[in-house]
Amino acid sequence: MTIRAIEWDHTAGRDRAGAVRLLDQTLLPLRTEFRTVERTDDLVTAIRELAVRGAPALGVAGALGVVVAMDEAAREGWDEQALQAAVDRVRHARPTAVNLAWGVDEVRPLMAAGREAVLEAALRLAQEDESANRQLSRLAADWLLERIDRPRLRVLTHCNAGILATSGWGTALGVVRELHARDRVELVYADETRPLFQGARLTAYELAKEGIPHVVQTDSAAASTILRGLVDLAVVGADRIAANGDTANKIGTLGVALACRDASIPFMVAAPWSTVDLSMSDGSTIEIEERDGDEVTSWAGIRVVPEGTQGFNPAFDVTPARLVDAVSTERGVAEPRSGRDLEMLARATDGVTH
Amino acid sequence: MTIRAIEWDHTAGRDRAGAVRLLDQTLLPLRTEFRTVERTDDLVTAIRELAVRGAPALGVAGALGVVVAMDEAAREGWDEQALQAAVDRVRHARPTAVNLAWGVDEVRPLMAAGREAVLEAALRLAQEDESANRQLSRLAADWLLERIDRPRLRVLTHCNAGILATSGWGTALGVVRELHARDRVELVYADETRPLFQGARLTAYELAKEGIPHVVQTDSAAASTILRGLVDLAVVGADRIAANGDTANKIGTLGVALACRDASIPFMVAAPWSTVDLSMSDGSTIEIEERDGDEVTSWAGIRVVPEGTQGFNPAFDVTPARLVDAVSTERGVAEPRSGRDLEMLARATDGVTH
Repeated sequence: MTIRAIEWDHTAGRDRAGAVRLLDQTLLPLRTEFRTVERTDDLVTAIRELAVRGAPALGVAGALGVVVAMDEAAREGWDEQALQAAVDRVRHARPTAVNLAWGVDEVRPLMAAGREAVLEAALRLAQEDESANRQLSRLAADWLLERIDRPRLRVLTHCNAGILATSGWGTALGVVRELHARDRVELVYADETRPLFQGARLTAYELAKEGIPHVVQTDSAAASTILRGLVDLAVVGADRIAANGDTANKIGTLGVALACRDASIPFMVAAPWSTVDLSMSDGSTIEIEERDGDEVTSWAGIRVVPEGTQGFNPAFDVTPARLVDAVSTERGVAEPRSGRDLEMLARATDGVTH
Repeated sequence: MTIRAIEWDHTAGRDRAGAVRLLDQTLLPLRTEFRTVERTDDLVTAIRELAVRGAPALGVAGALGVVVAMDEAAREGWDEQALQAAVDRVRHARPTAVNLAWGVDEVRPLMAAGREAVLEAALRLAQEDESANRQLSRLAADWLLERIDRPRLRVLTHCNAGILATSGWGTALGVVRELHARDRVELVYADETRPLFQGARLTAYELAKEGIPHVVQTDSAAASTILRGLVDLAVVGADRIAANGDTANKIGTLGVALACRDASIPFMVAAPWSTVDLSMSDGSTIEIEERDGDEVTSWAGIRVVPEGTQGFNPAFDVTPARLVDAVSTERGVAEPRSGRDLEMLARATDGVTH
């Protein structure tokens, strides 16, 4: 699968100076269309509408967003203050995924060195994200196969943490891809992921393209599927992981983790190190984005609820470390539930090249 | 709210001899339309399509279905075997809710006594269901208010167990009504209840009509809403309750129960005694209806998943007794998690008039 959620198109844009090209994920799987983005506010809109989404992909969007802002500033004659304000708008387009701010912050110091330096750093960051995903997937597969004695695994996943959520390969779906490459996947249960159906639309799209056996189920079926013994493990992505292993991810992740704990099967988080936020000792201060209630109460333009009824729409939840068996990163696998948390993994691998 | 999910219309039908009148719940809340049913197979279709649903309402449908079959037999000149086969089709229209078979079985022995005797018994059964609901709601409210020290309660419910699921008043929503009548409700979180949105469509409809403060959330938000401390209790209906308290109810109930247990808040089942199946010692042999995967993969005629992807659609789950704090029935409140199960409640109240 060669599709890319987000990339830099070197010859796109008004004066063919390059622009961000992103796959409009709001239209999948019905239509495959791309947006060319050369204005900061269009990027912010694309991020808010979830045309581009997924924590690692948002990291790349943040970094490339700095280039977009610099090009726009040059074109429109913005002063430094206007340029920095534009960069900040990208940085704060959504609050929960740490990667967005991280992507901006990684390249921002290079702005003084010029647009080419920033672009080069942003592209390197995208490349490194894909390598990180591949490495964390290998480590995750090793970890799982050491612990689960079964020829082929039955995997449950929630939301989409695949190619479409990253700059390539994927995190949770990267683990599934790695297991599939080793011929160790029996079936994937993909939670549909209300309200925006990222599981039904995007995860199923990736799995179908790869020919990986899968079914889509309602999010509310996950607990029962797990307690009935139909699943060997759950693996999900993350939007932010605190030092102790508390993990913010798509709403519904917590319910999956509770069921895994009750059934004593591994609940694994798969994420690049860029998703780890050591500045937070635990998840209690993670800001949870609350999105428009209409995403819950209407679908395809049809209102589901009666007049006057409001939707409550938190987009993420925080799974406490005590429910997280493993966090697989490119630096190694932390085991928060057993007390081997991200802080410890960071100390253990500090100075190690990765 | 004077609306009825199902009732006998004494002057409906071809020869004005009476027919079942049911509110077509597949169209709510957008349209309020009724179906007049005077053929057995139309009733079976209505049950399968969920035009009428909810365990207690299905009990009434089963009992009235015997009258429908008898009238049709008289009209069409069926022999006894054809008549009994028709009654069996109603009895087995859906497998999980015990009330459907119970409703049939309650009136079937009266068939020899004639159509009027059966109709009278069926109408009495409907009336008793409403009284039972009112009584179990009072007992439930007493039980909850003794245990939760808060001026007004924040209640989470899943699916629809209200007037629309019963012959009147409701079970889980009956408890909410009772609490509201005592001015003890702060807010109801109604899970939308995928795939058919009974929470968003039906529960919100009832709550809006009654002016009870509520919001609709995705099913996958329930665990987070509970663990964030936003909820004081969860109350749900049931389709079948085994002697030990294992409870079959709409898919997603189990996830709510797991979250309540983790947060140490009461998880209550509210159901009339007709939902209790003492013939099952536990829930392991409850048949779980698996419905068409298209209910998951399409909505309003629009396919959500890519070509080739199948839906997995179990309609119910079984919540183990160890997660059930209370089962409120008109005979009293059982406490399965504490070992005071339905079997014990039955013994304790045997011979008591109710």
